[in-house]
Amino acid sequence: MGSSTGRLFRVTTFGESHGEALGAIVEGCPPGLALDLEALQADLDRRRPGQSKLTTPRKEKDRVRVVSGLFEGATTGTPIGLLFFNEDAYSKSYDNVRDLFRPGHADYTYEARYGRRDHRGGGRASARETAARVAAAGVARQLLAQRHGVEVVGWVERVEDLEATVDPEQVTRAAVEAHPTRCPVPDVAEQMAARIAAVRADGDTVGGVVGAVARGVPAGWGDPVFDKLDGDLAKACLSLPACKGFEIGSGFAGTRMRGSAHNDPFWHDGERVRTRGNRHGGTLGGISSGASVVIRAAFKPVSTIFKPQETVDRDGNPVTFRNKGRHDPCVLPRAVPLVEAALLLTLADHALRAAALGAR
Amino acid sequence: MGSSTGRLFRVTTFGESHGEALGAIVEGCPPGLALDLEALQADLDRRRPGQSKLTTPRKEKDRVRVVSGLFEGATTGTPIGLLFFNEDAYSKSYDNVRDLFRPGHADYTYEARYGRRDHRGGGRASARETAARVAAAGVARQLLAQRHGVEVVGWVERVEDLEATVDPEQVTRAAVEAHPTRCPVPDVAEQMAARIAAVRADGDTVGGVVGAVARGVPAGWGDPVFDKLDGDLAKACLSLPACKGFEIGSGFAGTRMRGSAHNDPFWHDGERVRTRGNRHGGTLGGISSGASVVIRAAFKPVSTIFKPQETVDRDGNPVTFRNKGRHDPCVLPRAVPLVEAALLLTLADHALRAAALGAR
Amino acid sequence: MGSSTGRLFRVTTFGESHGEALGAIVEGCPPGLALDLEALQADLDRRRPGQSKLTTPRKEKDRVRVVSGLFEGATTGTPIGLLFFNEDAYSKSYDNVRDLFRPGHADYTYEARYGRRDHRGGGRASARETAARVAAAGVARQLLAQRHGVEVVGWVERVEDLEATVDPEQVTRAAVEAHPTRCPVPDVAEQMAARIAAVRADGDTVGGVVGAVARGVPAGWGDPVFDKLDGDLAKACLSLPACKGFEIGSGFAGTRMRGSAHNDPFWHDGERVRTRGNRHGGTLGGISSGASVVIRAAFKPVSTIFKPQETVDRDGNPVTFRNKGRHDPCVLPRAVPLVEAALLLTLADHALRAAALGAR
Amino acid sequence: MGSSTGRLFRVTTFGESHGEALGAIVEGCPPGLALDLEALQADLDRRRPGQSKLTTPRKEKDRVRVVSGLFEGATTGTPIGLLFFNEDAYSKSYDNVRDLFRPGHADYTYEARYGRRDHRGGGRASARETAARVAAAGVARQLLAQRHGVEVVGWVERVEDLEATVDPEQVTRAAVEAHPTRCPVPDVAEQMAARIAAVRADGDTVGGVVGAVARGVPAGWGDPVFDKLDGDLAKACLSLPACKGFEIGSGFAGTRMRGSAHNDPFWHDGERVRTRGNRHGGTLGGISSGASVVIRAAFKPVSTIFKPQETVDRDGNPVTFRNKGRHDPCVLPRAVPLVEAALLLTLADHALRAAALGAR
Repeated sequence: MGSSTGRLFRVTTFGESHGEALGAIVEGCPPGLALDLEALQADLDRRRPGQSKLTTPRKEKDRVRVVSGLFEGATTGTPIGLLFFNEDAYSKSYDNVRDLFRPGHADYTYEARYGRRDHRGGGRASARETAARVAAAGVARQLLAQRHGVEVVGWVERVEDLEATVDPEQVTRAAVEAHPTRCPVPDVAEQMAARIAAVRADGDTVGGVVGAVARGVPAGWGDPVFDKLDGDLAKACLSLPACKGFEIGSGFAGTRMRGSAHNDPFWHDGERVRTRGNRHGGTLGGISSGASVVIRAAFKPVSTIFKPQETVDRDGNPVTFRNKGRHDPCVLPRAVPLVEAALLLTLADHALRAAALGAR
Repeated sequence: MGSSTGRLFRVTTFGESHGEALGAIVEGCPPGLALDLEALQADLDRRRPGQSKLTTPRKEKDRVRVVSGLFEGATTGTPIGLLFFNEDAYSKSYDNVRDLFRPGHADYTYEARYGRRDHRGGGRASARETAARVAAAGVARQLLAQRHGVEVVGWVERVEDLEATVDPEQVTRAAVEAHPTRCPVPDVAEQMAARIAAVRADGDTVGGVVGAVARGVPAGWGDPVFDKLDGDLAKACLSLPACKGFEIGSGFAGTRMRGSAHNDPFWHDGERVRTRGNRHGGTLGGISSGASVVIRAAFKPVSTIFKPQETVDRDGNPVTFRNKGRHDPCVLPRAVPLVEAALLLTLADHALRAAALGAR
Repeated sequence: MGSSTGRLFRVTTFGESHGEALGAIVEGCPPGLALDLEALQADLDRRRPGQSKLTTPRKEKDRVRVVSGLFEGATTGTPIGLLFFNEDAYSKSYDNVRDLFRPGHADYTYEARYGRRDHRGGGRASARETAARVAAAGVARQLLAQRHGVEVVGWVERVEDLEATVDPEQVTRAAVEAHPTRCPVPDVAEQMAARIAAVRADGDTVGGVVGAVARGVPAGWGDPVFDKLDGDLAKACLSLPACKGFEIGSGFAGTRMRGSAHNDPFWHDGERVRTRGNRHGGTLGGISSGASVVIRAAFKPVSTIFKPQETVDRDGNPVTFRNKGRHDPCVLPRAVPLVEAALLLTLADHALRAAALGAR
Repeated sequence: MGSSTGRLFRVTTFGESHGEALGAIVEGCPPGLALDLEALQADLDRRRPGQSKLTTPRKEKDRVRVVSGLFEGATTGTPIGLLFFNEDAYSKSYDNVRDLFRPGHADYTYEARYGRRDHRGGGRASARETAARVAAAGVARQLLAQRHGVEVVGWVERVEDLEATVDPEQVTRAAVEAHPTRCPVPDVAEQMAARIAAVRADGDTVGGVVGAVARGVPAGWGDPVFDKLDGDLAKACLSLPACKGFEIGSGFAGTRMRGSAHNDPFWHDGERVRTRGNRHGGTLGGISSGASVVIRAAFKPVSTIFKPQETVDRDGNPVTFRNKGRHDPCVLPRAVPLVEAALLLTLADHALRAAALGAR
């Protein structure tokens, strides 16, 4: 278990970093959706390493192949098979981690759970798996845009202590893509780039925060009690590699406010009910309110550092481990499409759930 | 959907605040577990309003009835039915909210989703529903303790800006229960109590943060990719009323660290692999590491304030709303058993999943 | 697991034959359905023992209580809690089966699975559990009738070798209810009644076949591949106590036909596509065709006979077992509402699934 | 939905008859299972068309590729990706069915559900999809054999009215494979072969019955109430193309017996509890009894006949349809691995469920 998400818009991923292929199966996508394969590939390219000198120079071509579920350019309602074949995988470079447990990685926990692991490139725990979910999220993005008018945008909000102030109602994908850091505030973006370069030179890594918004979500999405929309979003974010925290709306900061200041008053704009302010972040009681859904996800500093680290091997012997190869010193720019994927997959699922209810 | 949680230790709740009864059905609890009904009731009593003058003086007797799944004091492997009958529900006192939407509450979103709602006491969205999940979590607590040696303790870590420093490895339930605030640091607890009293006098409300730990979780629990242990914990917390944020381990603060400082080195204590430090919070790659699982949940200030608020009625007309009745000015003390429930239900489910795998 | 069915119209049952209460939780029923509680009780009364001298004279009052999910007479979209309290349970009369395994019953297999069992009245394996699913099916019946114009009727088609020829397009509930055997062909019904009386006098039991039809099912319900409508119907029937076989449309008899005679030609009646003949039984490729859904379920002779039987006790010692108490010699009349329940619950679930797809 | 089966041993298939690729993702297979890829391919070859002159001469190479979940020859606990690429697909030969609905096929119902369909070779409704589930079942077969000592064998029991008497306790795969009909009784097999040849010459088709047994299933597998082992088996069979009926144990014939003759007495062989006779077919109350699980599945005559048939096109106009191409006149021999797959996938899932319970 664990390789599937969603109840009605259901995505199953498979594949290891250095196996033959990875992929995602998307079940439940409604029929008749014209799928723009170029846009799908463009979504994927944003996740790929090697987009700029800020990120790892590895080449992953990641050309997605849609092997099922499409007929004459549109979905048929049957499972959409999305495949990537692995190339250029230098598995040998991982021989030194075969028998030891890298700090901060899942080597030890996979062994504890399964008794064995594919150590090459992190195996199933590799961030490469996220290519599959970003591909599936690309389908969700087109579904949400075409059928529901929902738009999702993510951005880098903070790297270490360098923080940008971003207005979720106004930020555009173009502004985010304008800088390789994916921070839409140019001067902060420049500082972040400099910081990342300095950290890389030091063999170290940094973390930060990604923010994201879904605009156009109608009121009424989300199942109360255990499948709240915010609950599913939190799970989708915490299921991303390196994510250690989640907030919606006012989040942790809101806990320092008084109720009289925090409550968002309702008003009516002549067409529909709205709130003044959006401290609630777009959900009340786990159901969307019609306000923008605004979330934030915390990413720890990358575990793959280039300083010597103490650890143990499979037999419990202490060893000093030193990474080889090429890795991001900062995952934040590439985490933007991942947090967007968390939003997209969750919202697509809840869009279908709301339809099942017959409520919308 | 939405009223069930867990895949193998599966809990379904039902019932409205002012309906005839509430309850939880627990499917998948292994047979032969001797169930201590007094301990179960004691867990429930911690959630109940009216425990101290800090909380609402309403009386909810909340005597749980176990109507199925038990035979001669132990579980049979069949569904455990847990029932509460509602008494003393003054539904009339909610007549004034029948046609309007209370700010910060789910009145509007329920109507947007379902087209109608039971307005009495918040209906299904009432925090009273949590009685059912706390009862189910009481079963999980006994399962985890008896079969796996796992202990879960939660505490109030912060009220507004009043923050206690609590060591997750040492904190005890006795220390938590020693003060009605459920803050185990006495002087901070006193300040919190004073703050809550002052806020109540002002007709306002405050929020804060609950911390919780699960000690004794073996390495190997959690399904990677989409059903990570931390993902399920995040969802369980965000599914609690008023929760707006979640952290595991270093959380948001950890994003300000460098990788070289954040990674927890592995060592071997002669018996098993351990980590120095617990910035990872007990999970790596979504699977438990054998370290304590440490989480934090943010609760917004209570939405029910006693100052006039602007809102609209069902027809969109602006109205000024003023609460009547009795409500907590601070949900934190009663949120402790809820965050514990989130941990307990999630861990019980993953304990069974690990068993299914045959890995442990 | 095992106590829930349906993905979107989801029913969970709980309770043992001699426990404190049984019940069903119905999740996913759309909001705004006006629920006729008298009709619900009438559905239940058909399942109850003691309706005629053909069936057991035990009294089970089986007054259902709707404890949640209803507000002002209509569903709210939240879980509907249906409860029965057990009364008049003479548990003592089962003391003689406490330590032995009754042939044909689930005593041994429950012990093999769970290591222990509630032996009183069959515990969880008792047919009494079906009261809960018939209650849930009563909700499904009203949903299907009000929202989709679907009508479900079942009948006793065969008892032992006494077979009635029934036209699924014409049979009515009134005709079925006109005779205590629930066989709508009066002279066959009389023969069945005489046979059952004779078998009872002999201390033996008989089996037979129940037929059922759903009329008005639109084309397009059913998920292909693994969740075919006929697959879900088969599972629902085989999950009934004592059911050992299932057919749809031509069933086993159709396997003796040639394809040229079996295929149902399509034609168009000016309004919609139809088939000439209904050997397919209302599904093609697992999806409803718009023709009536016609199924048949085989029920073995009742396992509780009143002749001495050889068996073993828990320690493996051979014992001769002789039943005491009151039991049906023929389950068929009371199986009619159960097969209807199988149809109703399955169709309600697929009605919602089709809605989720946005296809209908 | 509908493209997945199993709760813990979970299989998702994807792909259309004439799409780029088909496949299955197997989630939940325990780690450390040495997978014999030759045996897996041998399982698949039995399903393939063109094995003998009794079946269609089409060539489907169906070389399966295992693209994930394996490391150094054994499973890792992560999803196993099984892929087939389509070759030699003469899609043009289906142009004549693009706009009409073939009798007995799913053309019309897919359009009713999805509004559109991939008409080439039956698209998703093609029996070619079963290659994917047979591949997944091959993994289940090795799991069940290696870890649980369970063996599954199927056979052709009847073609039209030609019936073989087969002892489920004794029949071997070798005996089944000895004749292209897969009937293990040589003289009946010869008659079947002659019948099939005659029917083919006539442009017509025949149906029949497949029997199958699982030997070595321990007592205690199966979830009572809604997920009975027999219920899941019935669903798995009815989800096979052309299957219209299911029996377990005595099935429909058993409904003509008296209870005193039908009940299987228990006895103890010194090691474990057993039954005299196996009219119950290996399950009691939905849970395995330790006796062999014996099932039967009815297959209608193949819908693709070579006589002219009346039908309508998409616009409702009457048309006379005449098949082209190559097709089986009798699906029975190739249905044997499909019924085995139904048993294998269901049992593998319940093996894991029992493990989750901790009962076995």
